[in-house]
Amino acid sequence: MKNSNTENIDLGLNRSPSGIADEDVMVALLNMGGPKTNADVRAFQSRLFNDTRLIRFPLSKILQPLFAWALVTFRGKASEERYQLIGGGSPLFSSTQAQTEALRRELKKRGRGFSLTFSFNYSEPLPEQTIAETKQANKKYLLPLSMYPHYSSATTGSNLYYLKKAAEGIYPQLQFLPTPLYYLHPDYIQGFVDRVHEQLKPGESLDDFYLIFSAHGLPVYFIMEGDPYPNQIAQSVALVLNQLKRKDKWIVAYQSAVGPMKWMTPSTEGVLRALAKQGMTKVLVVPIAFVNDHIETLCEINMEYKEFALKEGIKDFRMSRALETHPGFIKALADVIEALLPKSEKFQVSGVKSPVNT
Amino acid sequence: MKNSNTENIDLGLNRSPSGIADEDVMVALLNMGGPKTNADVRAFQSRLFNDTRLIRFPLSKILQPLFAWALVTFRGKASEERYQLIGGGSPLFSSTQAQTEALRRELKKRGRGFSLTFSFNYSEPLPEQTIAETKQANKKYLLPLSMYPHYSSATTGSNLYYLKKAAEGIYPQLQFLPTPLYYLHPDYIQGFVDRVHEQLKPGESLDDFYLIFSAHGLPVYFIMEGDPYPNQIAQSVALVLNQLKRKDKWIVAYQSAVGPMKWMTPSTEGVLRALAKQGMTKVLVVPIAFVNDHIETLCEINMEYKEFALKEGIKDFRMSRALETHPGFIKALADVIEALLPKSEKFQVSGVKSPVNT
Repeated sequence: MKNSNTENIDLGLNRSPSGIADEDVMVALLNMGGPKTNADVRAFQSRLFNDTRLIRFPLSKILQPLFAWALVTFRGKASEERYQLIGGGSPLFSSTQAQTEALRRELKKRGRGFSLTFSFNYSEPLPEQTIAETKQANKKYLLPLSMYPHYSSATTGSNLYYLKKAAEGIYPQLQFLPTPLYYLHPDYIQGFVDRVHEQLKPGESLDDFYLIFSAHGLPVYFIMEGDPYPNQIAQSVALVLNQLKRKDKWIVAYQSAVGPMKWMTPSTEGVLRALAKQGMTKVLVVPIAFVNDHIETLCEINMEYKEFALKEGIKDFRMSRALETHPGFIKALADVIEALLPKSEKFQVSGVKSPVNT
Repeated sequence: MKNSNTENIDLGLNRSPSGIADEDVMVALLNMGGPKTNADVRAFQSRLFNDTRLIRFPLSKILQPLFAWALVTFRGKASEERYQLIGGGSPLFSSTQAQTEALRRELKKRGRGFSLTFSFNYSEPLPEQTIAETKQANKKYLLPLSMYPHYSSATTGSNLYYLKKAAEGIYPQLQFLPTPLYYLHPDYIQGFVDRVHEQLKPGESLDDFYLIFSAHGLPVYFIMEGDPYPNQIAQSVALVLNQLKRKDKWIVAYQSAVGPMKWMTPSTEGVLRALAKQGMTKVLVVPIAFVNDHIETLCEINMEYKEFALKEGIKDFRMSRALETHPGFIKALADVIEALLPKSEKFQVSGVKSPVNT
């Protein structure tokens, strides 16, 4: 046997302190965010490219601001044009707002009294605003609920890092609850199955389509450092395939690679080219790790990869839509919150706290 | 978009030449093998440690024979003792023979006329013997069926490499069919579910046990080079969890690390130690990637890790058994063979070939 470090093993024993009152908890839906309008593109990108937790430029941290400035300056215009194509800004704000509302309704229906908000990393509401709001509302606990279903230090990890950093400065008493995971939840999976079926016209068979489960890629150093991201994606895909009773003609591929680092493979475009070469003419892209439609799906997949695929010889290129407020997805979110914070008998009467606090 | 190489993308389009007669196909179950008796331990290990495709010693290929000699010499006695503990040799020969027989019966029941054999990498029947047998039997095609359900270049890839090398010398006309995959097959999954339930006594609940899905680890360089091994294991695990309706208290861990290289994490022993620290007292280890019980399960898990776990404070340590000839597993194998080689109408009458060969 080799010696092994037990410090960093996540055993999934997400025990939260018992006897937490719903009224003391702020649930925050987390996302990287996006520029609300075209005018916000450069400010958003500047925050994004300056985050060394997300993007590590090859030379050093000292040069990061320079690289970030160069990227914003030289790619800014192209990015603005891409956002213009999908309506002049990212739909993430209104989309996440709608998810938060849907989850609020679902939890209220279940008699739960949590407060809900959402928080972005690189656009408003920024982590500092979320923490200030939580302090203002006098909540003791923050329950971070990532809109990245598959854990990566680049996404959920970065969201948590900045929220905790903001809390240190603004509200150090705030306690962070564990981040619930829902990537194996049957209703989350059913959401993707439904979205896939939505793309079929009456009489069409899914068997005729090759399925590309396209996830946002990462530089391989994230994987080397132990990100469970690709394994968790593989698991969601296995469950979708199982529900679809799908045996073959499918692959997991990674999109959105930029820069000189080595990224995860196979790439979505590489797969499209290989499929075209093999004479496959019908392709359905399932953005398995996206719960909101935004620039990566609406523009990158459904415009850029589509154009590329048609040029390579694919005749029929489709994309299933993101989950958004799919009822199964919202139910899965409510379920994992309730699994973490089971209804305490002491607090069953909504809004009325028990006088006994053991 | 980044440029991408389409050469090495496995699209899973396992098309085999059409119109293949069952009588022209040899199905070979593949495994690394093991020493049949204690007297075979050193010869087996010498072959194993000299395989640079499996084990790459840190310095260079030139020193490989020296390292291999040292390992066999200094570890040989300890290995013999371990084999002694499980009955004086590896049960792999008789176990694989039984699986081959069970699959032969299943295929015959389905009216299929394939010939079947099995082939090991480091003990008899060696690749050269398998190829000679296939030539002798005048088969045109070899269908390699790996007893490693999750593809790795270290296991299935190595088996294929040596079989193809042997064929080049002995029988260059032999055509290799694709290796069918069954790690997502519902009956293969059901096999593990059944094996897990077998460990429970009447009245016991699986919910009380933490589940460790323990797979044979690999040095991380295999993962860096694109082995789909961990993703495929994660997918099998997702389906087992789904069948067990299991939501928490589970992990995938990797066993059997040796040598100075960095291996995949978390390690099975690290997980055991972390669980003991957290006060978890009941553990069930599921050897998800083993279809035969051998030294890694019977000795390493069920004796060595067990002793370690009990010493660390785990009170109840159990291991579910390998699939062996579980009917679901055998059915899954027959299904994937038939999916690759669907029954041709021309050859429906068993043993009678159509005179028309288009």
